[in-house]
Amino acid sequence: MQSMTAYENLEKHFRRLGDLQHVGAIVSWDEAAMMPVGGGESRGDAMATLSVVVHEMLTDPCVGEWLDESDGLNDLSAWQTANLREIRRSFDAATAVTADLVRAKSLATARCEQAWRVARAANDWATMAPLLETVIGLTREEAAMRAAANGLDPYDALLDTYEPGMRAARVAGVFGELKGFLPEMVGEIIDAQKSLPATPITGEFSEESQRQLGLAMMKTLGFDFDRGRLDVSHHPFCGGVPDDVRITTRYRTDSFAESLMAVLHETGHAMYEQGLPVEWRGQPVGEALSMATHESQSLLMEMQACRTREFMQHMTPSAHAIFLGGASTDPVWSSENLYRLCTRVERGFIRVDADEVTYPLHVILRFEIERALIGGSLTVDHLPEAWDEKMQAYLGLDTQGNYADGCLQDVHWQAGLIGYFPTYSLGAMTAAQLFAAVRRALPDVMSNIAEGDFTALLAWLRANIHSQGRRLNFDELLTAATGQPLTVAPFRAHLQSRYLASD
Amino acid sequence: MQSMTAYENLEKHFRRLGDLQHVGAIVSWDEAAMMPVGGGESRGDAMATLSVVVHEMLTDPCVGEWLDESDGLNDLSAWQTANLREIRRSFDAATAVTADLVRAKSLATARCEQAWRVARAANDWATMAPLLETVIGLTREEAAMRAAANGLDPYDALLDTYEPGMRAARVAGVFGELKGFLPEMVGEIIDAQKSLPATPITGEFSEESQRQLGLAMMKTLGFDFDRGRLDVSHHPFCGGVPDDVRITTRYRTDSFAESLMAVLHETGHAMYEQGLPVEWRGQPVGEALSMATHESQSLLMEMQACRTREFMQHMTPSAHAIFLGGASTDPVWSSENLYRLCTRVERGFIRVDADEVTYPLHVILRFEIERALIGGSLTVDHLPEAWDEKMQAYLGLDTQGNYADGCLQDVHWQAGLIGYFPTYSLGAMTAAQLFAAVRRALPDVMSNIAEGDFTALLAWLRANIHSQGRRLNFDELLTAATGQPLTVAPFRAHLQSRYLASD
Repeated sequence: MQSMTAYENLEKHFRRLGDLQHVGAIVSWDEAAMMPVGGGESRGDAMATLSVVVHEMLTDPCVGEWLDESDGLNDLSAWQTANLREIRRSFDAATAVTADLVRAKSLATARCEQAWRVARAANDWATMAPLLETVIGLTREEAAMRAAANGLDPYDALLDTYEPGMRAARVAGVFGELKGFLPEMVGEIIDAQKSLPATPITGEFSEESQRQLGLAMMKTLGFDFDRGRLDVSHHPFCGGVPDDVRITTRYRTDSFAESLMAVLHETGHAMYEQGLPVEWRGQPVGEALSMATHESQSLLMEMQACRTREFMQHMTPSAHAIFLGGASTDPVWSSENLYRLCTRVERGFIRVDADEVTYPLHVILRFEIERALIGGSLTVDHLPEAWDEKMQAYLGLDTQGNYADGCLQDVHWQAGLIGYFPTYSLGAMTAAQLFAAVRRALPDVMSNIAEGDFTALLAWLRANIHSQGRRLNFDELLTAATGQPLTVAPFRAHLQSRYLASD
Repeated sequence: MQSMTAYENLEKHFRRLGDLQHVGAIVSWDEAAMMPVGGGESRGDAMATLSVVVHEMLTDPCVGEWLDESDGLNDLSAWQTANLREIRRSFDAATAVTADLVRAKSLATARCEQAWRVARAANDWATMAPLLETVIGLTREEAAMRAAANGLDPYDALLDTYEPGMRAARVAGVFGELKGFLPEMVGEIIDAQKSLPATPITGEFSEESQRQLGLAMMKTLGFDFDRGRLDVSHHPFCGGVPDDVRITTRYRTDSFAESLMAVLHETGHAMYEQGLPVEWRGQPVGEALSMATHESQSLLMEMQACRTREFMQHMTPSAHAIFLGGASTDPVWSSENLYRLCTRVERGFIRVDADEVTYPLHVILRFEIERALIGGSLTVDHLPEAWDEKMQAYLGLDTQGNYADGCLQDVHWQAGLIGYFPTYSLGAMTAAQLFAAVRRALPDVMSNIAEGDFTALLAWLRANIHSQGRRLNFDELLTAATGQPLTVAPFRAHLQSRYLASD
């Protein structure tokens, strides 16, 4: 029997679930940014229990009943219909996997992640391999269960949990296009940049002064400090909840650019959260759409808006005031030199240190390997060879025997996150496509940025992306915002224009 | 049917409950120490939902069944028996009050607390009175429900939630003794201190330097920084969980003593938490015993150990180094002057600013008023008169028309906390009684303190108080530690010795 009450019960149930997830988000942030080391063990227990309570609430049989009773209701608004779809998605995803598997994977990943910290530092593949094998085995089981539930291919079933609707075949097509031009383009750019030397900035940059610059630029971009904070953690991230977004960075006192760029990146993530539809707080439809969409918002700010001559023109006087105590005419401290430093392209081993041109090659390598691991055509013990072969092919780098800078550099697989990597580069391409649309819609956007005025840019993102929550799917959202679904061309054009146009 | 399994189920259930309370404690700390203002509304919702989930788990009918099945079990250890008793206490306390009353009181206190912030600043009793009347009315209902469940007098039923086993008649007896000598003693001390002038220390003391001194002294006292932090909040408090204790202070840059004393006080609370029995984490028997016991640990550190010539001898060189950049022979900065400043006695309006001699008079006044409010012999509209009358009698101060410094100064009643005030002074007396026992057991304790060595003192507290959790009741604990239940004599002797002995 169709019932509006059933739908209302779902909203009430998910509001309560959202409240517990809110608490979990704050406590997770606290663990990374505030918790002393001795608090770890009991914190781990507490967070595990909270997860169990959330999972029990999410998979409560009454959710299934209410979903069935709400099915085909005619008097729902478009937002309510989308919310119902997203609740169904959450419920199906949570019930697809057995509790035993969830528990086994949670134990195996915890063990593997802990061992990884030591193994990476010691370049110790032999210890890691069997632990990773267990995690991959359990993730294959998870993929099979999800595939059985939703009828997808196993790898697609994992990918779909991070990027709803995305399929490996489509990713492979997009990445195939990138592979077609990126390796050659990287070489051309490195050659071209030889005539645009960048001088490293040396000095001592206190944490407090870097924090001041970060806060000033967050303000420029439009971060709402009434609803968020900037703190320090081992790895930069964006956490918290839409009305209280917690971003972090880290500081090294011999350089400030890395921390600043991390702040700009996380600010992009944060402003997406802050712009989610207030009236749908706590409901699935009110959440961020997908990983690629999230990454598009961070990369749009960092790569498209801020790693530009215009932004550097705005930022440089603040850097002079904060680090030098006043204006400087030193060419090393010129906005042009800062711009060149922030757009340097290099072939390197480490994904997280990579520039935007080589970055997709790191991701493509991981996508191809993890797809083969789940598909069964690659086993964990042959992972280092596969890694080395692809690093040679895409970036011309030798990683034989260098596991620490090779297949042990990331923790994603150890954590059982398979299907996650592709979203980084889908996000980069989405950012380029969105920013191209922004430049068409707002012809003055770059001169606004040069003046430190992000108002119109943020308003466009608020209207076209942030406020949409999960009302539309990824293709619909992108089509509504840019006129077409995801395509490689704007990203390619962006790289061409930034790195190879003669200027 | 008696069953060990039932007891084990209770432990498992309460471990899970403890995990959710852990999460709640961290999020509460975050709200006070970290949260930006815009996060307040959704945080309020999230914390309310967590409270509901915790309450549902605590009052789950299966808890009652397991308790009945565990009743009279013979093969429980002393700790398990005590745990069972404490679980029964928690269950009975949580089930004594109807959900409707809990909700109504929660709404009324939230409204009253919000209005209080404005009303206190505006000295506006007229706006406050009806809101407080509602809260007191609901608290009377709560008291009646609790009284019906446990057979106590209504005020005792409230007092028992903060101080298990304590009764108003006993408090009245103890407070009667204090009233018998304190008002006169205050006068004698003020006279005596005229010949021991203290010179105020003026200067600018940065937050960072005060924080350094606070951290150094926390280390001296024995705070475990692997399992805790020091931060800033509007009011100093001790929060978090035993393996991750969060204390806070506040800083004013024209003075450092207030903040330092708050840090020492909260460190006493924190070390109690850090010393609770590890093997009973998450179980009721593993928690702190009572409010008075908790306050005894903070006041033992602050009042008994640290507001002493010996501690000031240890602390003063650190203060010189941090605030003056090196040793000083300025008499204003002498340890003797610091000691005199930290032991100054004055009749004042404000409880939280009061010294240890006048403090009990502030508490006695509140105890007598709140007991009359619950008993029905006083109504809220006559509260200001009752307040003024008692302030005149106990401290010789006129508060007519001065609500802000009178009956509007605290938020406890607005928050529905009735039965809480007496525990402050019970804690002060307990601290004196414990410290007298410490001095008998550790004859060198004061010279150790002068050397900054708190090891033996902390070990004594760990063994006699902290590690005991809730195994014993308050009288048993104090008798085991000092040879007798709570008595006024050690507190009186302490005041006599510190303030009136000729030295």
